[in-house]
Amino acid sequence: MRDFSSDHRWLSLNTATVRKQGDLVEIIEACASHGIRAIDPWRDQVAAVGLDRAARAVRDAGLELSGYCRGGMFTSDAAHGGEVRDDNRRAVDEAKALGAPCVVLVVGGLPQFSRPGSAPSRDIVAARAQVEDAIADMLDYARQVNMPLAIEPLHPAYAADRACVNTARQALDICDRLDPERSGLLGVALDVYHIWWDVEVSSQIARAGRERLLAFHVCDWLVPTRDMLNDRGMMGDGVIDIKSLRAAVEAQGFCGYSEIEIFSNYWWDKPLDDVLRTCIARHRTVV
Amino acid sequence: MRDFSSDHRWLSLNTATVRKQGDLVEIIEACASHGIRAIDPWRDQVAAVGLDRAARAVRDAGLELSGYCRGGMFTSDAAHGGEVRDDNRRAVDEAKALGAPCVVLVVGGLPQFSRPGSAPSRDIVAARAQVEDAIADMLDYARQVNMPLAIEPLHPAYAADRACVNTARQALDICDRLDPERSGLLGVALDVYHIWWDVEVSSQIARAGRERLLAFHVCDWLVPTRDMLNDRGMMGDGVIDIKSLRAAVEAQGFCGYSEIEIFSNYWWDKPLDDVLRTCIARHRTVV
Repeated sequence: MRDFSSDHRWLSLNTATVRKQGDLVEIIEACASHGIRAIDPWRDQVAAVGLDRAARAVRDAGLELSGYCRGGMFTSDAAHGGEVRDDNRRAVDEAKALGAPCVVLVVGGLPQFSRPGSAPSRDIVAARAQVEDAIADMLDYARQVNMPLAIEPLHPAYAADRACVNTARQALDICDRLDPERSGLLGVALDVYHIWWDVEVSSQIARAGRERLLAFHVCDWLVPTRDMLNDRGMMGDGVIDIKSLRAAVEAQGFCGYSEIEIFSNYWWDKPLDDVLRTCIARHRTVV
Repeated sequence: MRDFSSDHRWLSLNTATVRKQGDLVEIIEACASHGIRAIDPWRDQVAAVGLDRAARAVRDAGLELSGYCRGGMFTSDAAHGGEVRDDNRRAVDEAKALGAPCVVLVVGGLPQFSRPGSAPSRDIVAARAQVEDAIADMLDYARQVNMPLAIEPLHPAYAADRACVNTARQALDICDRLDPERSGLLGVALDVYHIWWDVEVSSQIARAGRERLLAFHVCDWLVPTRDMLNDRGMMGDGVIDIKSLRAAVEAQGFCGYSEIEIFSNYWWDKPLDDVLRTCIARHRTVV
């Protein structure tokens, strides 16, 4: 397991962590000034400053990307099917333009939440079938430009509205069906927030192996959690044994960035520099 | 699958659903007046009126029990171990006195939340081992009085503070290890709220089979969910395909009560009779 205690060279910042404190160019400049070497930007943040300007800012700051957030939201009614496909192909194109190592996929829950305006449904079994078909289609497109896709299993609390793929096992089952040759073009993005509770987490990380472990995200689970989406904790403030999970992915050969992604009303209220300083300190001590 | 549309003879009320509207005796009387034939009372509600008085009220009203809530909270530090054991033996004794068909087990999360005052821990693996040892011990005791124990897997959102058994698969693995002979004395209580999201839910229900299916609880998952614990929905107001889940348990031969358990600040604010009328209407239409 790598020693993170003396520097933060393997820290990546998911830019949603400070999305309220500045635009993407400002966030990139702040990261550079704090010696943060990598980011994972969100599409809306890229769109807000323009793809060309975002790509230039990343390059000028000498940053790497640890992923691109996000493709997915695959579930919809038939009327929205074209939108889903076009949107995800654009995500691949943008990821390529930005030099991202993968597109992170949040697959969508029930269609009415994934693609608003879609006819309401309670059929999560159908939603999952649709997700798998759509990933297969997106993979065909991504393969042409050699852009890996990282399925992110989301905590079951988001099954209805954000992702009906909720465990590492479920995500890896999809990977095995769609990419049995383990090409490296389909894998998982594992966020400790979403998987820490799972009795199978260690065995599924081992099953994933290096080829399928495309991204590793950290934050913490707070008790109590006051908001289902936006009360994620800074590493060390909650109950997740983060080091054990990092040890598990690194035991499989994962040697990429440890990406900090915190959706938090609390941290969005703090000055950008304070958040980055805290991220760096916690990265060195509890990640 | 049984037809619930023309009566509510298979409706049981978990008394937490109306815990703010009256004491247990008042709830029992209201149930009787609405033709509800069964309840699942909570220990604190029984204690508040006294065990003897509770047992008499149940008997006088001609009610059955569909369970007794709850045993468990097995995780603790060493100093609280005796408390855990004694408390759970009392739960078995009370269930017997009340004529309950099983004790529902909410197994506990990390020790500091399960048994306040316990030393804090982030070791969920150790918590799970402790849970299994404690269930084995409680089962020895329960066997002497022929009282079945029903492990309730709780939604992963409660892994830290309420239960580190979070899927039907995990609960059934424990059952298989502790009761390989499928004696009927150890099984699961399945609440649609906790399991609906699980890609394995159907296969695990089939695996459980009739001997392991000791209780079936219903409510609904609301989008958005505004409170992690107390914003559960009335059946039909959320996204769960309840009928499919009931069909799955009944396909295994389950023929017990469909127990309504709703923790909801919204419904706790409504008059008792209104809540019961709504429960009955929804039981007949969407359960």
